[in-house]
Amino acid sequence: MIRSVLVDIEGVLCIGERPIARSLEALALLRQRGAGLRFVTNTTRRTRADIVRQLAAIGFDVALDEVVTGALAARRRIEAEGLRPCLLVHPGLLPDFAGIATDAPNAVVIGDAAEGFTYAAMNAAFRILIDAPGAPLLALANNRYFRAADGLSLDAGPYVAALEYASGARAEAMGKPAAAIFRAALDALKTMPQEALMVGDDLESDIGGARDAGLQTVLVRTGKYRASDESHPMVRADHVADDFHRAVVEVILPRLSS
Amino acid sequence: MIRSVLVDIEGVLCIGERPIARSLEALALLRQRGAGLRFVTNTTRRTRADIVRQLAAIGFDVALDEVVTGALAARRRIEAEGLRPCLLVHPGLLPDFAGIATDAPNAVVIGDAAEGFTYAAMNAAFRILIDAPGAPLLALANNRYFRAADGLSLDAGPYVAALEYASGARAEAMGKPAAAIFRAALDALKTMPQEALMVGDDLESDIGGARDAGLQTVLVRTGKYRASDESHPMVRADHVADDFHRAVVEVILPRLSS
Repeated sequence: MIRSVLVDIEGVLCIGERPIARSLEALALLRQRGAGLRFVTNTTRRTRADIVRQLAAIGFDVALDEVVTGALAARRRIEAEGLRPCLLVHPGLLPDFAGIATDAPNAVVIGDAAEGFTYAAMNAAFRILIDAPGAPLLALANNRYFRAADGLSLDAGPYVAALEYASGARAEAMGKPAAAIFRAALDALKTMPQEALMVGDDLESDIGGARDAGLQTVLVRTGKYRASDESHPMVRADHVADDFHRAVVEVILPRLSS
Repeated sequence: MIRSVLVDIEGVLCIGERPIARSLEALALLRQRGAGLRFVTNTTRRTRADIVRQLAAIGFDVALDEVVTGALAARRRIEAEGLRPCLLVHPGLLPDFAGIATDAPNAVVIGDAAEGFTYAAMNAAFRILIDAPGAPLLALANNRYFRAADGLSLDAGPYVAALEYASGARAEAMGKPAAAIFRAALDALKTMPQEALMVGDDLESDIGGARDAGLQTVLVRTGKYRASDESHPMVRADHVADDFHRAVVEVILPRLSS
């Protein structure tokens, strides 16, 4: 039986600024039934508050506490261990780390800092890792590159690789498919993995990651879904549904424990 | 029989600004006998002209043509293939690439650019590699870090790793122990590898690299030499000598073909 549902945003609830058909209705059904809910997304430039605003603008009423990002997973880890991170992240993400002590740093959080990836900033991060072997290197993403207005541009992954090569440290991933982000969502919901279900359109990131973390999964045939995802040799979703609404009605509601 | 001798500089001819005992005399002996000579060094911030001046200041009379660096090896490759490189190198090294066309780049040369490793410069290099798969990525060094005045600082290696991770390209090393630098020296001397001998104090870089390139080798017990170098499980020098003078008198002169 399922107590809580984790939902990817882009490609499941909406495509950019357009809600996917009946996804608003599907979400309302889950709320009516009292399911625990978290929206789990791999963004490295927008705060959780930004995401709440953008969802509200297209009709989704989501609370700040319901949005789980790699930054939140990193913040939980920082708080739990009393770490003082050097924040090599995009300026747009800094509000999500408000109130965290960053003096005398003993950890590094790395995202897609873009222009913030100066030689001085990279050296500062490197020196923490080389001076204190075992200092955590928390990676909000490992993507190789993304398409910016002026062309393909380096994402966090290459700079994570640079710090790993220089220091010998191994980065710990915070975003999907890493377990840290699913754990952050489940901890907040006080739900065991086997009582939770992840809905996503990305076979590797959403489905593979959630399965590795012990959750049940539904792959939806929207967003970046491709037919070949249903015959992948390594990753197989527990369920497949045409869209989020069908996932809720056909898969989730019949299994909801509350 | 040996026609040409390749000599490492730091730790073989001198320690910083102090010539090693009798190394001036040893070099004079090689010149008297007409041996082909090249000085093969892994510098990524000083031009070959800088090196000639610094050697002259401590008594070594070395011609510009006799100095072989990773930058020279890269330049030879660029000239041979008509490449137009994006030069992500230290400003101090740029004169060694004077006259090379860099418009519409189709290759990347990467050294320890230090402050020059901006996000914009890294993106420019990345776009060349991703837009033209197979575009050469020539690495002047792969070192992880070095000690700068203000602390340990990132060398070229981490940034090479970043570009490799982002683009999928594999860097080709230009400095020792890579074959490219030995080949640049041998081509200029019109000498076959088996007729050449490398003298060095660095087991991996000088001895291992030269052996892989087919040269004979002498390890000298000066500079960074350590006793354990003589029982290394993987790399073994053909000869070992107490210093450069003993290497010349005991190993090289008896085998010199001219």
